[in-house]
Formats: sequence, structure tokens, C-alpha cells
Amino acid sequence: MTSASDTPETTVTDTLPSVTVFVCTSCGKTSNDPNGPASRGEILLDRLTKAAKPHAHIKTQAVDCFAVCTREVTIAFSAPGKWSYVIGDTDPARDIDDILTAATAVANAPHGVPKLKERPAFFRTGVISRIPPRD
Amino acid sequence: MTSASDTPETTVTDTLPSVTVFVCTSCGKTSNDPNGPASRGEILLDRLTKAAKPHAHIKTQAVDCFAVCTREVTIAFSAPGKWSYVIGDTDPARDIDDILTAATAVANAPHGVPKLKERPAFFRTGVISRIPPRD
Repeated sequence: MTSASDTPETTVTDTLPSVTVFVCTSCGKTSNDPNGPASRGEILLDRLTKAAKPHAHIKTQAVDCFAVCTREVTIAFSAPGKWSYVIGDTDPARDIDDILTAATAVANAPHGVPKLKERPAFFRTGVISRIPPRD
Repeated sequence: MTSASDTPETTVTDTLPSVTVFVCTSCGKTSNDPNGPASRGEILLDRLTKAAKPHAHIKTQAVDCFAVCTREVTIAFSAPGKWSYVIGDTDPARDIDDILTAATAVANAPHGVPKLKERPAFFRTGVISRIPPRD
């Protein structure tokens, strides 16, 4: 029998396949003043980055512009060797948990293409395009 | 002095950075009969692949669907370590040469983002989205 005190301290290792969530920080910008209010994209990135901390396989990254612009906030999922999805109309007040759920679904899907039932609402309605891995 | 006969036979090597042009072969499909007429996407892929033969740095590849569907024929440029572009409304009767020109412009651009003046008409009007490289 092993008591709790026999167990060395460990860091929980996240062994899920990795995935990057890109977030457009130009989306919803209302001011060009660097000290002005944060854009909706910046707010989403900030909230998502904090919420993603316990999920070591999910990396977040700011993007200047996806060249979409009419469907803010635009984000993208990208994982090694898998299809990438560009998705618009995400909402920092509504979609943070669902974006994390979807990121994990992309990471776990063999080709990065989650089944429809694994796609939260924002993913089912927001897809702008997808692109295959190069190899 | 070296005469022509001293020069060993060589194959012209294309040293430009590589780029893949993905083409949606579902775009413009009018029949589900495998012996039915080719889709506009299949026609574009066929013409582009033949036209790209002298350009060893340009690879073409069929894609089932970019999830765009309203702007056929959809294609994408993808190169190692560079931004990828998804572009709609391309025309197999009009754009083959321009797609090759644009593919080389993407391959040559430091981040895969060609200057505006290097973008043929289809590229200036057709961008659906772009996505950064993961690393």
C-alpha cells in the first residue's frame, strides 16, 4: 500500500495532441490609440489564454488579420498534420469554453475534422473555410 | 575555355521555394456519376497541373472541399513556414497563368504575403481568408 506521502510531487502532463488557436486581435478594434480600449479580438484572446492555462495541449496566438474582417471575431484552429479551420462570428462573452472544447476536438480528430456532433454551435455556424495540411 | 561538348547533360533544377496549390474538385460538380462530366474544379486542376509542369517548385493537389462552396472554384496556396491563402471565384478558362504567377509570388514572398502589385486580379478580389503558419 502506498500512502499519499510516498507519492512524489508531480506536474500533470497533458498528453493530448497539440493544437494552436489563432485569434485576430484586429477584429472589433474601435481605436488606433495604443492606449485605447481593447478590441473584441484582444478581449477574446486574453480570456481564452487564461482559460486555456490548465490545458497544456492548447496554445493561443495573436494574429493581425485573417483577411476576413466582416465576421469578427475570427479565429482559427491549426494542428500538425491536420486540416485547419478559419471560423468567424465568435464572441468573447459567449464562446470561450466552447472554443476550448472545439480545440480539443480538432486535436483529437484523426485528420483535424471533428464529427458534427462534436462541434459546438459557433463551429457549426461559423466556418469560413478550411485548408488541408500540406503533406 | 569550355566547349559545349565538355558540359555534362543536366536537368534544369528549379531552385525557387516550393508551394502547393490546392484545388477543390467538388466545386462546380454537376453530376454524382463517376463517368459524368468533369467538375469545373477538376477541369481547373487538370489544366493547372499540365501548365505547372515546367515549374518544379509548384505542386498541385486535389482537395475534396474547403467548406466554402458558394465561391467556386476555390483554391489555396500553401508553402512551408508561410501564410496560406484560400481564394474563391477562380476560373479554369481565365486564371491558369495567373494562378501560376501568384503561386510563385507566394513562394517568393518572405512570409507568403505577396505585395498588392504582385497579385493578379483573381487574387485581389477572391481572398476568402488567410491563415498563418503554426511556427
